[in-house]
Amino acid sequence: MQKRDILTPIGITLGFIMIMLAIVEKDGRSGISLFFDVSSVFIVLGGIVASLLINFKNEQIKLARIVFKEAFYKNDQRLSDLIRLFVTLSERARREGILALENELEDVDDEFIRKGILLAVDGIEPEVINDIMNAEITAMEERHYKGRVILEKCGEYAPAWGMIGTLVGLVLMLSNLDDPASLGPNMAVALLTTLYGTVFANLFFVPMASKLENKTEEEVFLKQIIIEGVIGVQSGQNPRILEEKLSAFLSGEPLDDSADEDDPTVAEENIYET
Amino acid sequence: MQKRDILTPIGITLGFIMIMLAIVEKDGRSGISLFFDVSSVFIVLGGIVASLLINFKNEQIKLARIVFKEAFYKNDQRLSDLIRLFVTLSERARREGILALENELEDVDDEFIRKGILLAVDGIEPEVINDIMNAEITAMEERHYKGRVILEKCGEYAPAWGMIGTLVGLVLMLSNLDDPASLGPNMAVALLTTLYGTVFANLFFVPMASKLENKTEEEVFLKQIIIEGVIGVQSGQNPRILEEKLSAFLSGEPLDDSADEDDPTVAEENIYET
Amino acid sequence: MQKRDILTPIGITLGFIMIMLAIVEKDGRSGISLFFDVSSVFIVLGGIVASLLINFKNEQIKLARIVFKEAFYKNDQRLSDLIRLFVTLSERARREGILALENELEDVDDEFIRKGILLAVDGIEPEVINDIMNAEITAMEERHYKGRVILEKCGEYAPAWGMIGTLVGLVLMLSNLDDPASLGPNMAVALLTTLYGTVFANLFFVPMASKLENKTEEEVFLKQIIIEGVIGVQSGQNPRILEEKLSAFLSGEPLDDSADEDDPTVAEENIYET
Amino acid sequence: MQKRDILTPIGITLGFIMIMLAIVEKDGRSGISLFFDVSSVFIVLGGIVASLLINFKNEQIKLARIVFKEAFYKNDQRLSDLIRLFVTLSERARREGILALENELEDVDDEFIRKGILLAVDGIEPEVINDIMNAEITAMEERHYKGRVILEKCGEYAPAWGMIGTLVGLVLMLSNLDDPASLGPNMAVALLTTLYGTVFANLFFVPMASKLENKTEEEVFLKQIIIEGVIGVQSGQNPRILEEKLSAFLSGEPLDDSADEDDPTVAEENIYET
Amino acid sequence: MQKRDILTPIGITLGFIMIMLAIVEKDGRSGISLFFDVSSVFIVLGGIVASLLINFKNEQIKLARIVFKEAFYKNDQRLSDLIRLFVTLSERARREGILALENELEDVDDEFIRKGILLAVDGIEPEVINDIMNAEITAMEERHYKGRVILEKCGEYAPAWGMIGTLVGLVLMLSNLDDPASLGPNMAVALLTTLYGTVFANLFFVPMASKLENKTEEEVFLKQIIIEGVIGVQSGQNPRILEEKLSAFLSGEPLDDSADEDDPTVAEENIYET
Repeated sequence: MQKRDILTPIGITLGFIMIMLAIVEKDGRSGISLFFDVSSVFIVLGGIVASLLINFKNEQIKLARIVFKEAFYKNDQRLSDLIRLFVTLSERARREGILALENELEDVDDEFIRKGILLAVDGIEPEVINDIMNAEITAMEERHYKGRVILEKCGEYAPAWGMIGTLVGLVLMLSNLDDPASLGPNMAVALLTTLYGTVFANLFFVPMASKLENKTEEEVFLKQIIIEGVIGVQSGQNPRILEEKLSAFLSGEPLDDSADEDDPTVAEENIYET
Repeated sequence: MQKRDILTPIGITLGFIMIMLAIVEKDGRSGISLFFDVSSVFIVLGGIVASLLINFKNEQIKLARIVFKEAFYKNDQRLSDLIRLFVTLSERARREGILALENELEDVDDEFIRKGILLAVDGIEPEVINDIMNAEITAMEERHYKGRVILEKCGEYAPAWGMIGTLVGLVLMLSNLDDPASLGPNMAVALLTTLYGTVFANLFFVPMASKLENKTEEEVFLKQIIIEGVIGVQSGQNPRILEEKLSAFLSGEPLDDSADEDDPTVAEENIYET
Repeated sequence: MQKRDILTPIGITLGFIMIMLAIVEKDGRSGISLFFDVSSVFIVLGGIVASLLINFKNEQIKLARIVFKEAFYKNDQRLSDLIRLFVTLSERARREGILALENELEDVDDEFIRKGILLAVDGIEPEVINDIMNAEITAMEERHYKGRVILEKCGEYAPAWGMIGTLVGLVLMLSNLDDPASLGPNMAVALLTTLYGTVFANLFFVPMASKLENKTEEEVFLKQIIIEGVIGVQSGQNPRILEEKLSAFLSGEPLDDSADEDDPTVAEENIYET
Repeated sequence: MQKRDILTPIGITLGFIMIMLAIVEKDGRSGISLFFDVSSVFIVLGGIVASLLINFKNEQIKLARIVFKEAFYKNDQRLSDLIRLFVTLSERARREGILALENELEDVDDEFIRKGILLAVDGIEPEVINDIMNAEITAMEERHYKGRVILEKCGEYAPAWGMIGTLVGLVLMLSNLDDPASLGPNMAVALLTTLYGTVFANLFFVPMASKLENKTEEEVFLKQIIIEGVIGVQSGQNPRILEEKLSAFLSGEPLDDSADEDDPTVAEENIYET
Repeated sequence: MQKRDILTPIGITLGFIMIMLAIVEKDGRSGISLFFDVSSVFIVLGGIVASLLINFKNEQIKLARIVFKEAFYKNDQRLSDLIRLFVTLSERARREGILALENELEDVDDEFIRKGILLAVDGIEPEVINDIMNAEITAMEERHYKGRVILEKCGEYAPAWGMIGTLVGLVLMLSNLDDPASLGPNMAVALLTTLYGTVFANLFFVPMASKLENKTEEEVFLKQIIIEGVIGVQSGQNPRILEEKLSAFLSGEPLDDSADEDDPTVAEENIYET
């Protein structure tokens, strides 16, 4: 259900290129080496890790790696495919009975849809199906939040540790003013941690946390349509009406590919016209 | 339904004129060239784009252009015209029956009104009409939010990348203190990105995002009145009473032109008197 | 219903006197002229206007003048007068019937009370009166918000444009370090816009927006008591009981004059004792 | 019901001692005089007053004195005493009838309890008693908020006026760079207002506003238990059960003295164990 | 129910090591002594205590020590153990009747479960059990909040007092510019309080308050499952179904050890897949 999202690596690369350009344009290639300082990277990243260790439980911290990776993938479930699937299921259910859907399940990858269909086939009442599946959505939101909050906290701790590093550097520099020649370079190094903290926050943590939030919202949206579809199929709704009903969500859909790939201009114009 | 809003270009021009004046007044025309630095523009705009690429999906980023353009247009739907339309529709419906409204639809441009009238003509029950049309409003709000949030995020990333650019410039400057003569100009250039970031945020992104939010609120307001009107027409309400009822919204209306063009003084005085 | 509120001009004057004192005390009268710089005022005010033009519709910006003026007036409606009025109305209604109230209306200035009494005389049901009058309160809140939000936005844009002005000045100053003598004065001028932005925000926009918010809350409170009173009068409630009921609001009333003018000490002590 | 809270003066004194220590440790006693500058105190306090005059109505500003004083007192009503009182009342009501409670009232100081008992004795229905007494709580919360918000606003205006004072000082200093010897001391004086603003906000306004908020929450909590008690007494509940019921609140009670004076260790351990 | 959480001391140690590394790397071991300044520690910690004394009641401040200690412990209650317990209880209740559970209680440590079982054995109705136990949860949340808010306030006051200390140092330094040699070191010392304030806030107070909030959420989650379990046991639900029902919570569970210790890979992959 997930596809690599090349925008994330492109964005990160672009961010670094921009910074490089700013350096090279002013100081030539030699300038770039001024911006690498291992101990500065250490204090900022180490400090963030230190704050995270205090902030979270062991189990939640282990999530950090997965969450970080997650920002490089995007959902690949199209609303139009979903609608087509439910129209097919609905037609079969009306023709051969709801129990026939059990055979269709082999072609369905999505765990959430499978679960819904199985509940429908078992004859569970619609309200109960709705409750159970909504409970799953809530659990998913909670689970995603637990991962995302780590990135959000990183976005708060990064500038703080950048500032701590700079203060350490400034105190050292000011305590040894004997050598005026080293003054500038020392202060330059002191400022590096603030630079790192700001870049880490605004190029990694904040936009990644925001992306994961968008993805969760999108998944919740798709899952709610699945619930509608499952209940529609179970209640033997007319496939045509079911399609209409599910398509109503299209206008508010979280910018699914299909819509604007099929006819981008129309879709774009529609955003503010309707 | 949209009309160019000349205030946006006027505001942007005024903002730049103010900055120009501040420069020219202190340093003569020659000073202006000091404030153009391509690489500084690059790092700020490029950085914002980089953060956006990580923050949003491909489809949402494509919206940025439309959203940006949208800030140069305003809604051109007057509440008074709306009321007049519904009074006419109501009179005709009472005279010739609700089905006669289908012919009136040719003169109605607004998609939302057309949809409402068609639902009314089809004899759908008022609560259902209300539900369907409110669902459309919610979908519109959601859709607008997805566009506006890009501008809001730009307003956050702009000052951050301005600061990153300045830090890069400061580090470079401090590392090369050998030439005291270049110290001032180098620092001046370093500050430019902070200036750009602040101007971009406060002259473009923040007020534009805020304008789009106001526009969405206004549209929601108008659409809710349309729902009232459609249901009133369908239920065969007395045209006079319908007019009264819809006019009640006028006092709370989002500053529609009509009101203060007809009699600006009264309208203005009324704002706090009633 | 409105009375000049001399506290606003007193506050503004006091604020300026404080700043003057700070200047004169340190630098004599001659120092004051250092703090007037037309182009600095221009960039800050012009910049705020520029951002507002982008942020709001034409009709909303026109409100700015009225809203600004509004901060110099206060509500002059006393809760005790209101209660007395409703007791009188209630007595008359019980003696001569509800229709007799139509004659009393000539003495009532407040549009909101008049409307309520007319609805009561027309025999509209209490719940409907409640709905209609509460809708008016909501519309008033909405209308007031639309004006107040302009001041709130000014309070955000003022420091931002102050910073933009200072950055412009700093860049100019740093680019021309040849004349060391002009360094100090140039930087002094550069700082003026930050000073202006901070003073504008904290002496005008922020407290005025806050005052208007308080006034709106107060009006909402009084209007809700009027609704209680109108319904009480219509339902033929005992004037004595109506008075008791309305007086219950006195303890939570928004610091109406009457209470502490009549017996300030008691009222003050009561604030935390009851 | 109120007792002096010596923590507030101790805190203020401690804060000043800390600052004094920091000065004396570095600069000897002579340094302290550097930190008194009448005009700096004037601009900060005068500026805060100026902003408050614009921000609030006359009647609300008068509250400032009482509110300030209020931060030096604490509630002295113990939950355990309350429970004991209601057990006694309940026993008597069961023995001699609810009307007998009127005699008990002489020993009750608390206005709120008296009012509740009187309502109960008058035979008002429980739901009505609940409504009336909850309305009083809401009115109290509203009243307390109106006082507290002044302190909160002071906490916002104090740093702003500190910054304004510093900017004024910096502009003056930078305009007169002729005498290098006065540079340092002038800048030192300029920084004093920022220091004052920060100290005023963090040693007075912010913690005091926060304390008053805590006190209000505590009072609301106690008053809600009183309502439970009054209704329990009126409905002739078994004194033993009433005691059990009211004691259930003890675990969540706002850190009443009694609990941890009686057995501090247990209470403390319980905070996270249960 | 609590187990030492070694992550907190590890995090704190790591944070200090990072700062030490930054110092030693730039200035050798001798540099470390520059960062210890007793009076600077005093003004920051003393200032925080001063603000807390004003901010809180005596009883709440006493909690600080316990709350601080609490950040070094973690909950040790596994969801899987809970489910197993309730399956056992449910089986016994069905075999030997609900009263038989009273004997099982000896093996149950958790006070909350014991209370629930006792209520169930006493034959209290499910809704009442639900109400009573939820009231306990609310009381626990309230109690925890009262402790945590102290840490949160510390996180606000720490940087403020750091700034106050720096301002004091700067004023002293600027007033005595006679000895240029002492300028740097004096400013270095002045900056120390800002460094302390930032480190205290970001290495102690903010992450600890955040950890305590996570722990409270986790406990609330576990207690809600206990309520489900108790009611399930009382209503004689099939042990198999009860297990299924409680396991549904597992996917949304607050990252309990058991899940990813048993099969970490699966659990991790599941976080975004389901």
